[in-house]
Amino acid sequence: MPELAYVNGKISSIEMAMVPVEDRGYQFGDAVYEVIVSYSGRLFALEEHLERLEGSMCELDFPPISRETVRHSIQDLFKQADLPRAALYLQISRGVGPRNHAFPETRKLQVVMTVRKVDEKPAMLRREGTAAITLKDFRWGRCDIKTVQLLANVLAKQKATESGVDDAIFVAEDEVVREATSSNVFIVADGVVITHPLTQNILPGITRAVVIDLCKDVNLALEERFYYLKDLYSADEVFMTGTITEVLPLVKIDGQIIGDGKVGPVSKQLYGALHEKINNS
Amino acid sequence: MPELAYVNGKISSIEMAMVPVEDRGYQFGDAVYEVIVSYSGRLFALEEHLERLEGSMCELDFPPISRETVRHSIQDLFKQADLPRAALYLQISRGVGPRNHAFPETRKLQVVMTVRKVDEKPAMLRREGTAAITLKDFRWGRCDIKTVQLLANVLAKQKATESGVDDAIFVAEDEVVREATSSNVFIVADGVVITHPLTQNILPGITRAVVIDLCKDVNLALEERFYYLKDLYSADEVFMTGTITEVLPLVKIDGQIIGDGKVGPVSKQLYGALHEKINNS
Repeated sequence: MPELAYVNGKISSIEMAMVPVEDRGYQFGDAVYEVIVSYSGRLFALEEHLERLEGSMCELDFPPISRETVRHSIQDLFKQADLPRAALYLQISRGVGPRNHAFPETRKLQVVMTVRKVDEKPAMLRREGTAAITLKDFRWGRCDIKTVQLLANVLAKQKATESGVDDAIFVAEDEVVREATSSNVFIVADGVVITHPLTQNILPGITRAVVIDLCKDVNLALEERFYYLKDLYSADEVFMTGTITEVLPLVKIDGQIIGDGKVGPVSKQLYGALHEKINNS
Repeated sequence: MPELAYVNGKISSIEMAMVPVEDRGYQFGDAVYEVIVSYSGRLFALEEHLERLEGSMCELDFPPISRETVRHSIQDLFKQADLPRAALYLQISRGVGPRNHAFPETRKLQVVMTVRKVDEKPAMLRREGTAAITLKDFRWGRCDIKTVQLLANVLAKQKATESGVDDAIFVAEDEVVREATSSNVFIVADGVVITHPLTQNILPGITRAVVIDLCKDVNLALEERFYYLKDLYSADEVFMTGTITEVLPLVKIDGQIIGDGKVGPVSKQLYGALHEKINNS
Protein backbone atom coordinates (compact mmCIF):
# COMPACT_ATOMS: atom_id res chain seq x y z
CA MET A 1 0.00 0.00 0.00
CA PRO A 2 2.51 2.62 -1.14
CA GLU A 3 2.04 6.37 -1.43
CA LEU A 4 2.84 7.25 -5.03
CA ALA A 5 3.26 10.14 -7.41
CA TYR A 6 2.67 10.61 -11.12
CA VAL A 7 4.31 13.13 -13.44
CA ASN A 8 3.17 13.17 -17.06
CA GLY A 9 2.63 9.43 -17.17
CA LYS A 10 5.57 8.37 -15.04
CA ILE A 11 4.81 6.80 -11.65
CA SER A 12 7.32 6.97 -8.80
CA SER A 13 7.58 7.45 -5.06
CA ILE A 14 6.44 10.92 -4.01
CA GLU A 15 9.97 11.85 -2.93
CA MET A 16 11.33 11.08 -6.41
CA ALA A 17 8.63 12.99 -8.30
CA MET A 18 10.00 16.24 -9.68
CA VAL A 19 8.88 19.08 -11.92
CA PRO A 20 11.02 21.61 -13.81
CA VAL A 21 11.74 24.90 -12.02
CA GLU A 22 10.23 26.71 -14.99
CA ASP A 23 6.89 24.91 -14.64
CA ARG A 24 4.39 27.77 -14.68
CA GLY A 25 2.70 26.22 -11.68
CA TYR A 26 5.87 26.96 -9.73
CA GLN A 27 6.65 30.45 -10.99
CA PHE A 28 3.15 31.90 -11.44
CA GLY A 29 0.71 29.58 -9.66
CA ASP A 30 -0.63 29.02 -13.17
CA ALA A 31 -2.20 25.66 -12.33
CA VAL A 32 -5.47 24.06 -11.28
CA TYR A 33 -6.04 21.12 -8.98
CA GLU A 34 -8.50 18.66 -7.47
CA VAL A 35 -8.45 16.47 -4.37
CA ILE A 36 -10.45 13.26 -4.69
CA VAL A 37 -10.87 10.78 -1.86
CA SER A 38 -11.78 7.13 -1.77
CA TYR A 39 -13.89 5.15 0.66
CA SER A 40 -13.37 1.40 0.90
CA GLY A 41 -11.29 1.42 -2.24
CA ARG A 42 -13.70 3.46 -4.39
CA LEU A 43 -13.13 7.06 -5.50
CA PHE A 44 -16.09 9.22 -4.54
CA ALA A 45 -17.65 11.71 -6.99
CA LEU A 46 -14.87 11.25 -9.54
CA GLU A 47 -16.95 12.54 -12.46
CA GLU A 48 -17.96 15.67 -10.53
CA HIS A 49 -14.30 16.40 -9.82
CA LEU A 50 -13.35 15.84 -13.45
CA GLU A 51 -16.13 18.15 -14.56
CA ARG A 52 -15.03 20.91 -12.18
CA LEU A 53 -11.42 20.42 -13.30
CA GLU A 54 -12.47 20.96 -16.91
CA GLY A 55 -14.34 24.07 -15.82
CA SER A 56 -11.25 25.47 -14.08
CA MET A 57 -9.09 24.77 -17.13
CA CYS A 58 -11.64 26.33 -19.42
CA GLU A 59 -11.82 29.54 -17.33
CA LEU A 60 -8.03 29.86 -17.59
CA ASP A 61 -7.91 29.06 -21.32
CA PHE A 62 -5.81 25.96 -20.81
CA PRO A 63 -5.62 23.73 -23.86
CA PRO A 64 -8.19 20.95 -23.54
CA ILE A 65 -7.26 17.49 -22.32
CA SER A 66 -9.43 14.44 -22.80
CA ARG A 67 -11.45 13.52 -19.73
CA GLU A 68 -10.90 9.87 -20.50
CA THR A 69 -7.12 10.30 -20.42
CA VAL A 70 -7.28 12.04 -17.05
CA ARG A 71 -9.77 9.55 -15.63
CA HIS A 72 -7.66 6.64 -16.80
CA SER A 73 -4.47 8.12 -15.27
CA ILE A 74 -6.23 8.73 -11.97
CA GLN A 75 -7.68 5.25 -11.82
CA ASP A 76 -4.41 3.63 -12.77
CA LEU A 77 -2.43 5.50 -10.09
CA PHE A 78 -5.13 4.87 -7.51
CA LYS A 79 -5.09 1.17 -8.33
CA GLN A 80 -1.31 0.93 -8.09
CA ALA A 81 -1.29 2.70 -4.73
CA ASP A 82 -3.92 0.28 -3.48
CA LEU A 83 -4.91 2.48 -0.53
CA PRO A 84 -8.57 1.87 0.44
CA ARG A 85 -8.88 5.32 2.03
CA ALA A 86 -6.79 7.55 -0.22
CA ALA A 87 -6.57 11.24 -1.02
CA LEU A 88 -5.60 11.69 -4.63
CA TYR A 89 -4.18 15.12 -5.43
CA LEU A 90 -4.19 16.11 -9.11
CA GLN A 91 -2.55 19.28 -10.38
CA ILE A 92 -2.43 20.45 -13.98
CA SER A 93 -0.27 23.43 -14.91
CA ARG A 94 -0.18 25.39 -18.14
CA GLY A 95 3.23 23.98 -18.97
CA VAL A 96 6.94 24.68 -18.84
CA GLY A 97 8.88 27.50 -20.47
CA PRO A 98 11.10 30.53 -19.97
CA ARG A 99 9.45 32.82 -17.43
CA ASN A 100 7.08 35.24 -19.14
CA HIS A 101 3.69 36.27 -17.81
CA ALA A 102 1.74 35.86 -21.07
CA PHE A 103 0.72 32.35 -22.10
CA PRO A 104 3.55 30.32 -23.67
CA GLU A 105 3.46 29.07 -27.23
CA THR A 106 3.77 25.51 -26.03
CA ARG A 107 0.43 23.98 -25.28
CA LYS A 108 1.85 21.01 -23.40
CA LEU A 109 0.15 20.74 -20.04
CA GLN A 110 1.96 19.29 -17.01
CA VAL A 111 -0.07 16.65 -15.21
CA VAL A 112 1.05 15.76 -11.69
CA MET A 113 -0.60 13.56 -9.08
CA THR A 114 0.11 12.22 -5.63
CA VAL A 115 -1.85 9.62 -3.76
CA ARG A 116 -1.58 9.45 0.01
CA LYS A 117 -3.56 8.08 2.91
CA VAL A 118 -6.32 10.50 3.93
CA ASP A 119 -5.33 12.76 6.79
CA GLU A 120 -8.53 12.01 8.75
CA LYS A 121 -10.27 14.60 10.93
CA PRO A 122 -10.06 13.44 14.57
CA ALA A 123 -13.22 11.59 15.68
CA MET A 124 -13.59 13.97 18.64
CA LEU A 125 -13.89 16.94 16.30
CA ARG A 126 -16.71 15.19 14.47
CA ARG A 127 -18.43 14.21 17.69
CA GLU A 128 -18.12 17.46 19.58
CA GLY A 129 -17.76 20.00 16.80
CA THR A 130 -14.86 22.32 16.23
CA ALA A 131 -13.91 26.00 16.36
CA ALA A 132 -12.92 28.66 13.86
CA ILE A 133 -11.94 32.29 13.64
CA THR A 134 -13.08 34.75 10.99
CA LEU A 135 -10.91 37.12 9.04
CA LYS A 136 -11.20 39.59 6.20
CA ASP A 137 -11.30 37.93 2.80
CA PHE A 138 -8.06 39.05 1.18
CA ARG A 139 -7.99 36.38 -1.53
CA TRP A 140 -8.07 37.18 -5.23
CA GLY A 141 -11.28 37.72 -7.17
CA ARG A 142 -11.55 34.31 -8.82
CA CYS A 143 -11.93 31.88 -5.94
CA ASP A 144 -14.46 30.01 -8.08
CA ILE A 145 -11.58 28.62 -10.13
CA LYS A 146 -9.77 25.86 -8.25
CA THR A 147 -6.21 27.12 -8.69
CA VAL A 148 -3.08 26.93 -6.57
CA GLN A 149 -3.38 30.65 -5.72
CA LEU A 150 -3.62 29.52 -2.12
CA LEU A 151 -1.24 31.66 -0.11
CA ALA A 152 -4.07 33.63 1.51
CA ASN A 153 -5.64 30.31 2.50
CA VAL A 154 -2.30 29.12 3.86
CA LEU A 155 -1.84 32.26 5.96
CA ALA A 156 -5.42 32.08 7.23
CA LYS A 157 -5.16 28.41 8.16
CA GLN A 158 -1.88 29.09 9.94
CA LYS A 159 -3.48 31.96 11.86
CA ALA A 160 -6.28 29.59 12.90
CA THR A 161 -3.75 26.98 14.01
CA GLU A 162 -1.83 29.56 16.03
CA SER A 163 -5.14 30.71 17.56
CA GLY A 164 -5.73 27.13 18.70
CA VAL A 165 -8.70 26.53 16.40
CA ASP A 166 -9.32 24.30 13.40
CA ASP A 167 -10.03 26.73 10.60
CA ALA A 168 -10.57 30.31 9.46
CA ILE A 169 -13.62 31.70 7.68
CA PHE A 170 -13.21 34.49 5.14
CA VAL A 171 -15.64 37.39 5.56
CA ALA A 172 -16.01 40.10 2.91
CA GLU A 173 -15.63 43.84 3.53
CA ASP A 174 -19.44 44.14 3.80
CA GLU A 175 -19.47 41.23 6.31
CA VAL A 176 -20.87 38.66 3.88
CA VAL A 177 -19.58 35.27 5.01
CA ARG A 178 -17.71 33.58 2.15
CA GLU A 179 -16.16 30.20 3.05
CA ALA A 180 -13.39 28.57 5.08
CA THR A 181 -9.81 27.93 3.92
CA SER A 182 -10.67 24.68 2.18
CA SER A 183 -14.37 24.15 2.91
CA ASN A 184 -17.69 25.82 2.20
CA VAL A 185 -19.74 27.10 5.12
CA PHE A 186 -23.45 26.53 5.88
CA ILE A 187 -25.61 27.93 8.65
CA VAL A 188 -28.95 26.71 9.99
CA ALA A 189 -31.33 29.44 11.17
CA ASP A 190 -34.99 28.87 12.11
CA GLY A 191 -34.97 25.50 10.39
CA VAL A 192 -33.56 26.83 7.11
CA VAL A 193 -30.17 25.72 5.80
CA ILE A 194 -28.38 28.69 4.23
CA THR A 195 -25.16 28.85 2.20
CA HIS A 196 -23.38 31.46 0.07
CA PRO A 197 -24.54 31.34 -3.59
CA LEU A 198 -22.11 30.41 -6.36
CA THR A 199 -20.21 33.57 -7.34
CA GLN A 200 -16.59 34.31 -8.23
CA ASN A 201 -15.84 34.60 -4.48
CA ILE A 202 -16.29 30.98 -3.42
CA LEU A 203 -15.36 27.55 -4.65
CA PRO A 204 -18.18 25.50 -6.15
CA GLY A 205 -17.58 22.69 -3.70
CA ILE A 206 -18.45 19.14 -4.74
CA THR A 207 -19.56 18.29 -1.20
CA ARG A 208 -21.43 21.61 -1.07
CA ALA A 209 -23.48 20.47 -4.10
CA VAL A 210 -24.01 17.01 -2.63
CA VAL A 211 -25.23 18.49 0.66
CA ILE A 212 -27.60 20.84 -1.14
CA ASP A 213 -29.08 17.84 -2.94
CA LEU A 214 -29.29 15.93 0.32
CA CYS A 215 -31.25 18.80 1.90
CA LYS A 216 -33.83 18.40 -0.83
CA ASP A 217 -33.87 14.61 -0.36
CA VAL A 218 -34.57 14.89 3.36
CA ASN A 219 -36.97 17.85 3.04
CA LEU A 220 -34.80 20.48 4.66
CA ALA A 221 -35.48 24.03 3.47
CA LEU A 222 -32.35 25.27 1.70
CA GLU A 223 -31.46 28.77 0.53
CA GLU A 224 -28.40 29.79 -1.47
CA ARG A 225 -28.10 33.43 -0.51
CA PHE A 226 -25.72 35.89 1.10
CA TYR A 227 -25.66 35.91 4.90
CA TYR A 228 -23.64 38.04 7.27
CA LEU A 229 -21.26 37.74 10.17
CA LYS A 230 -24.08 38.48 12.64
CA ASP A 231 -26.09 35.61 11.09
CA LEU A 232 -23.09 33.33 11.55
CA TYR A 233 -22.82 34.17 15.24
CA SER A 234 -26.56 33.88 15.88
CA ALA A 235 -27.12 30.69 13.85
CA ASP A 236 -28.61 27.61 15.48
CA GLU A 237 -25.96 25.51 13.75
CA VAL A 238 -22.93 26.12 11.54
CA PHE A 239 -21.11 23.46 9.58
CA MET A 240 -18.41 23.25 6.92
CA THR A 241 -18.43 20.97 3.90
CA GLY A 242 -15.57 19.66 1.79
CA THR A 243 -14.05 16.57 0.28
CA ILE A 244 -11.99 15.80 3.37
CA THR A 245 -14.06 17.94 5.75
CA GLU A 246 -17.24 16.04 4.75
CA VAL A 247 -19.82 17.72 7.05
CA LEU A 248 -18.01 19.18 10.05
CA PRO A 249 -19.93 21.17 12.70
CA LEU A 250 -18.56 24.43 14.11
CA VAL A 251 -19.62 25.06 17.70
CA LYS A 252 -17.44 28.09 18.43
CA ILE A 253 -16.54 31.00 16.16
CA ASP A 254 -14.35 33.93 17.23
CA GLY A 255 -14.74 32.62 20.77
CA GLN A 256 -18.55 32.84 20.61
CA ILE A 257 -20.62 29.74 21.26
CA ILE A 258 -22.84 28.76 18.33
CA GLY A 259 -26.36 27.60 19.29
CA ASP A 260 -26.12 25.55 22.45
CA GLY A 261 -22.46 24.75 21.78
CA LYS A 262 -23.21 21.17 20.80
CA VAL A 263 -23.40 19.47 17.41
CA GLY A 264 -26.92 20.16 16.15
CA PRO A 265 -29.49 17.82 14.64
CA VAL A 266 -29.24 19.16 11.07
CA SER A 267 -25.46 18.74 11.01
CA LYS A 268 -25.83 15.19 12.33
CA GLN A 269 -28.56 14.36 9.85
CA LEU A 270 -26.59 15.66 6.86
CA TYR A 271 -23.38 13.93 7.95
CA GLY A 272 -25.34 10.68 8.15
CA ALA A 273 -27.03 11.26 4.80
CA LEU A 274 -23.66 12.03 3.17
CA HIS A 275 -22.19 8.76 4.40
CA GLU A 276 -25.26 6.87 3.29
CA LYS A 277 -24.80 8.37 -0.17
CA ILE A 278 -21.09 7.49 -0.15
CA ASN A 279 -21.87 3.91 0.87
CA ASN A 280 -24.45 3.55 -1.88
CA SER A 281 -22.34 5.14 -4.60
CA MET B 1 27.87 32.17 -21.84
CA PRO B 2 25.39 29.54 -20.70
CA GLU B 3 21.96 30.01 -19.18
CA LEU B 4 22.02 28.20 -15.84
CA ALA B 5 19.86 27.17 -12.91
CA TYR B 6 20.52 26.63 -9.24
CA VAL B 7 18.56 24.46 -6.83
CA ASN B 8 19.65 24.45 -3.16
CA GLY B 9 23.32 24.82 -4.05
CA LYS B 10 23.41 22.63 -7.14
CA ILE B 11 24.04 24.33 -10.47
CA SER B 12 22.82 22.78 -13.73
CA SER B 13 21.30 23.67 -17.07
CA ILE B 14 17.83 25.18 -16.68
CA GLU B 15 16.24 22.17 -18.37
CA MET B 16 17.77 19.79 -15.81
CA ALA B 17 16.78 21.86 -12.76
CA MET B 18 13.91 20.23 -10.92
CA VAL B 19 11.94 20.70 -7.70
CA PRO B 20 9.80 18.17 -5.81
CA VAL B 21 6.10 18.09 -6.66
CA GLU B 22 5.36 18.71 -2.99
CA ASP B 23 7.36 21.93 -2.93
CA ARG B 24 4.93 24.40 -1.33
CA GLY B 25 5.76 26.86 -4.07
CA TYR B 26 4.15 24.45 -6.51
CA GLN B 27 1.08 23.40 -4.53
CA PHE B 28 0.23 26.65 -2.71
CA GLY B 29 2.22 29.44 -4.35
CA ASP B 30 3.88 29.66 -0.94
CA ALA B 31 7.04 31.31 -2.30
CA VAL B 32 8.65 34.70 -2.82
CA TYR B 33 10.88 35.86 -5.63
CA GLU B 34 13.07 38.58 -7.06
CA VAL B 35 14.32 39.41 -10.55
CA ILE B 36 17.69 41.13 -10.67
CA VAL B 37 19.33 42.32 -13.87
CA SER B 38 22.89 43.11 -14.78
CA TYR B 39 24.36 45.79 -17.02
CA SER B 40 27.81 45.27 -18.50
CA GLY B 41 28.43 42.34 -16.19
CA ARG B 42 27.35 44.05 -12.95
CA LEU B 43 24.16 43.28 -11.03
CA PHE B 44 22.16 46.45 -10.43
CA ALA B 45 20.64 47.26 -7.03
CA LEU B 46 21.46 43.83 -5.62
CA GLU B 47 21.28 44.98 -1.99
CA GLU B 48 17.88 46.60 -2.52
CA HIS B 49 16.56 43.34 -3.99
CA LEU B 50 18.00 41.35 -1.09
CA GLU B 51 16.42 43.72 1.38
CA ARG B 52 13.00 43.46 -0.29
CA LEU B 53 13.37 39.67 -0.40
CA GLU B 54 13.97 39.61 3.35
CA GLY B 55 10.91 41.80 3.82
CA SER B 56 8.74 39.41 1.78
CA MET B 57 10.01 36.43 3.75
CA CYS B 58 9.45 38.22 7.04
CA GLU B 59 5.83 39.10 6.11
CA LEU B 60 5.16 35.43 5.39
CA ASP B 61 6.93 34.17 8.53
CA PHE B 62 9.52 32.24 6.55
CA PRO B 63 12.47 31.08 8.63
CA PRO B 64 15.33 33.56 8.22
CA ILE B 65 18.18 32.95 5.80
CA SER B 66 21.48 34.79 5.94
CA ARG B 67 21.75 37.59 3.43
CA GLU B 68 25.37 36.73 2.88
CA THR B 69 24.49 33.18 1.89
CA VAL B 70 21.93 34.39 -0.62
CA ARG B 71 24.21 37.11 -1.97
CA HIS B 72 27.05 34.66 -2.36
CA SER B 73 24.85 32.12 -4.19
CA ILE B 74 23.56 34.82 -6.52
CA GLN B 75 27.01 36.15 -7.31
CA ASP B 76 28.43 32.69 -7.84
CA LEU B 77 25.68 31.67 -10.28
CA PHE B 78 25.86 35.00 -12.06
CA LYS B 79 29.64 34.62 -12.44
CA GLN B 80 29.36 31.07 -13.77
CA ALA B 81 26.75 32.11 -16.32
CA ASP B 82 29.02 34.94 -17.47
CA LEU B 83 26.21 36.81 -19.24
CA PRO B 84 26.94 40.56 -19.27
CA ARG B 85 23.26 41.42 -19.61
CA ALA B 86 21.50 38.82 -17.48
CA ALA B 87 18.17 38.49 -15.70
CA LEU B 88 18.64 36.49 -12.54
CA TYR B 89 15.41 34.99 -11.18
CA LEU B 90 15.48 33.92 -7.52
CA GLN B 91 12.62 32.06 -5.88
CA ILE B 92 12.49 30.90 -2.26
CA SER B 93 9.67 28.65 -1.13
CA ARG B 94 8.67 27.66 2.37
CA GLY B 95 9.85 24.11 1.79
CA VAL B 96 8.74 20.62 0.82
CA GLY B 97 6.27 18.38 2.63
CA PRO B 98 2.99 16.48 2.46
CA ARG B 99 0.28 18.88 1.29
CA ASN B 100 -1.26 20.71 4.23
CA HIS B 101 -2.24 24.37 4.26
CA ALA B 102 -0.72 25.23 7.65
CA PHE B 103 3.04 25.79 7.82
CA PRO B 104 5.07 22.58 7.85
CA GLU B 105 7.26 21.57 10.77
CA THR B 106 10.29 21.52 8.52
CA ARG B 107 11.94 24.88 8.31
CA LYS B 108 14.09 24.01 5.32
CA LEU B 109 13.61 26.63 2.63
CA GLN B 110 13.94 25.78 -1.06
CA VAL B 111 16.19 28.19 -2.94
CA VAL B 112 15.93 28.15 -6.73
CA MET B 113 17.49 30.44 -9.32
CA THR B 114 17.74 30.76 -13.05
CA VAL B 115 19.93 33.12 -14.99
CA ARG B 116 19.03 33.98 -18.57
CA LYS B 117 19.76 36.70 -21.06
CA VAL B 118 17.48 39.69 -20.50
CA ASP B 119 14.43 39.67 -22.72
CA GLU B 120 14.96 43.29 -23.84
CA LYS B 121 12.08 45.66 -24.57
CA PRO B 122 12.16 46.51 -28.30
CA ALA B 123 13.99 49.80 -28.97
CA MET B 124 10.96 51.10 -30.87
CA LEU B 125 8.78 50.78 -27.75
CA ARG B 126 11.27 52.86 -25.82
CA ARG B 127 11.52 55.46 -28.59
CA GLU B 128 7.84 55.80 -29.44
CA GLY B 129 6.17 54.66 -26.22
CA THR B 130 3.77 51.81 -25.86
CA ALA B 131 0.12 51.06 -25.12
CA ALA B 132 -1.85 49.44 -22.32
CA ILE B 133 -5.36 48.54 -21.31
CA THR B 134 -6.84 48.91 -17.85
CA LEU B 135 -8.83 46.32 -15.97
CA LYS B 136 -10.36 45.81 -12.56
CA ASP B 137 -7.83 44.82 -9.91
CA PHE B 138 -8.82 41.29 -9.00
CA ARG B 139 -5.54 40.33 -7.32
CA TRP B 140 -5.26 39.36 -3.69
CA GLY B 141 -4.87 41.85 -0.86
CA ARG B 142 -1.11 41.51 -0.29
CA CYS B 143 0.44 42.67 -3.55
CA ASP B 144 3.11 44.40 -1.46
CA ILE B 145 4.67 40.99 -0.80
CA LYS B 146 6.57 39.74 -3.86
CA THR B 147 5.08 36.26 -4.05
CA VAL B 148 4.33 33.91 -6.92
CA GLN B 149 0.57 34.54 -6.49
CA LEU B 150 0.68 35.82 -10.06
CA LEU B 151 -2.18 34.21 -11.93
CA ALA B 152 -4.19 37.45 -12.02
CA ASN B 153 -1.12 39.16 -13.48
CA VAL B 154 -0.74 36.33 -16.01
CA LEU B 155 -4.37 36.62 -17.12
CA ALA B 156 -4.15 40.41 -17.33
CA LYS B 157 -0.93 40.32 -19.34
CA GLN B 158 -2.45 37.76 -21.67
CA LYS B 159 -5.53 39.94 -22.13
CA ALA B 160 -3.23 42.85 -23.01
CA THR B 161 -1.34 40.69 -25.50
CA GLU B 162 -4.58 39.55 -27.12
CA SER B 163 -5.72 43.19 -27.24
CA GLY B 164 -2.56 44.01 -29.19
CA VAL B 165 -1.00 46.13 -26.45
CA ASP B 166 2.02 45.74 -24.21
CA ASP B 167 0.56 45.65 -20.73
CA ALA B 168 -2.48 45.93 -18.47
CA ILE B 169 -2.96 48.35 -15.58
CA PHE B 170 -4.97 47.27 -12.54
CA VAL B 171 -7.57 49.79 -11.37
CA ALA B 172 -9.38 49.42 -8.04
CA GLU B 173 -13.16 49.35 -7.60
CA ASP B 174 -13.08 53.07 -6.70
CA GLU B 175 -11.01 53.78 -9.85
CA VAL B 176 -7.73 54.31 -8.01
CA VAL B 177 -4.95 53.33 -10.42
CA ARG B 178 -2.75 50.64 -8.83
CA GLU B 179 0.04 49.34 -11.08
CA ALA B 180 0.72 47.26 -14.21
CA THR B 181 1.22 43.48 -14.33
CA SER B 182 4.93 43.69 -13.47
CA SER B 183 5.65 47.42 -13.27
CA ASN B 184 4.63 50.41 -11.18
CA VAL B 185 2.83 53.29 -12.92
CA PHE B 186 3.60 57.02 -12.74
CA ILE B 187 1.74 59.96 -14.24
CA VAL B 188 2.91 63.50 -14.91
CA ALA B 189 0.27 66.21 -14.49
CA ASP B 190 0.95 69.95 -14.52
CA GLY B 191 4.64 69.34 -13.96
CA VAL B 192 4.12 67.04 -10.97
CA VAL B 193 5.16 63.40 -11.05
CA ILE B 194 2.56 61.29 -9.21
CA THR B 195 2.59 57.64 -8.20
CA HIS B 196 0.50 55.36 -5.97
CA PRO B 197 1.75 55.38 -2.36
CA LEU B 198 3.13 52.19 -0.78
CA THR B 199 0.16 50.20 0.52
CA GLN B 200 -0.71 46.50 0.55
CA ASN B 201 -2.11 46.91 -2.98
CA ILE B 202 1.09 47.56 -4.91
CA LEU B 203 4.60 46.21 -5.07
CA PRO B 204 7.30 48.38 -3.52
CA GLY B 205 9.25 48.46 -6.78
CA ILE B 206 13.01 48.90 -6.63
CA THR B 207 12.97 50.99 -9.82
CA ARG B 208 9.97 52.91 -8.41
CA ALA B 209 12.13 53.92 -5.44
CA VAL B 210 15.10 54.77 -7.65
CA VAL B 211 12.91 56.94 -9.89
CA ILE B 212 11.43 58.75 -6.87
CA ASP B 213 14.95 59.54 -5.71
CA LEU B 214 15.91 60.66 -9.20
CA CYS B 215 12.97 63.07 -9.25
CA LYS B 216 14.39 64.70 -6.16
CA ASP B 217 17.87 64.79 -7.70
CA VAL B 218 16.65 66.57 -10.82
CA ASN B 219 14.21 68.81 -8.97
CA LEU B 220 11.00 67.33 -10.28
CA ALA B 221 8.01 67.71 -7.95
CA LEU B 222 6.97 64.22 -6.82
CA GLU B 223 3.86 63.12 -4.97
CA GLU B 224 3.09 59.65 -3.69
CA ARG B 225 -0.69 59.74 -3.57
CA PHE B 226 -3.76 58.02 -4.96
CA TYR B 227 -4.83 59.10 -8.43
CA TYR B 228 -7.75 57.94 -10.53
CA LEU B 229 -8.54 56.53 -13.92
CA LYS B 230 -9.61 59.97 -15.17
CA ASP B 231 -6.20 61.35 -14.06
CA LEU B 232 -4.49 58.58 -15.97
CA TYR B 233 -6.36 59.44 -19.18
CA SER B 234 -5.82 63.18 -18.81
CA ALA B 235 -2.16 63.02 -17.74
CA ASP B 236 0.50 64.85 -19.75
CA GLU B 237 2.67 61.76 -19.52
CA VAL B 238 2.35 58.21 -18.17
CA PHE B 239 5.23 55.82 -17.68
CA MET B 240 5.86 52.45 -16.08
CA THR B 241 8.87 51.50 -13.99
CA GLY B 242 10.38 48.11 -13.25
CA THR B 243 13.57 46.12 -13.22
CA ILE B 244 13.21 45.07 -16.84
CA THR B 245 10.75 47.80 -17.80
CA GLU B 246 13.21 50.50 -16.57
CA VAL B 247 11.27 53.69 -17.45
CA LEU B 248 8.84 52.90 -20.24
CA PRO B 249 6.42 55.57 -21.53
CA LEU B 250 2.77 54.77 -22.23
CA VAL B 251 1.29 56.86 -25.01
CA LYS B 252 -2.05 55.10 -25.40
CA ILE B 253 -4.30 53.64 -22.70
CA ASP B 254 -7.64 51.97 -23.43
CA GLY B 255 -7.33 53.36 -26.94
CA GLN B 256 -7.06 56.94 -25.67
CA ILE B 257 -4.03 59.01 -26.60
CA ILE B 258 -2.04 60.25 -23.59
CA GLY B 259 -0.80 63.85 -23.82
CA ASP B 260 0.26 64.51 -27.39
CA GLY B 261 0.79 60.81 -28.04
CA LYS B 262 4.57 61.14 -28.00
CA VAL B 263 7.15 60.24 -25.38
CA GLY B 264 7.23 63.25 -23.05
CA PRO B 265 10.19 65.19 -21.64
CA VAL B 266 9.87 63.90 -18.06
CA SER B 267 9.84 60.27 -19.17
CA LYS B 268 12.91 60.94 -21.34
CA GLN B 269 14.70 62.76 -18.56
CA LEU B 270 14.05 60.02 -16.00
CA TYR B 271 15.05 57.25 -18.40
CA GLY B 272 18.32 59.09 -19.02
CA ALA B 273 18.87 59.71 -15.32
CA LEU B 274 18.20 56.05 -14.53
CA HIS B 275 20.81 54.93 -17.04
CA GLU B 276 23.28 57.45 -15.73
CA LYS B 277 22.74 56.04 -12.26
CA ILE B 278 23.17 52.49 -13.58
CA ASN B 279 26.40 53.44 -15.36
CA ASN B 280 27.78 55.06 -12.24
CA SER B 281 26.77 52.27 -9.87
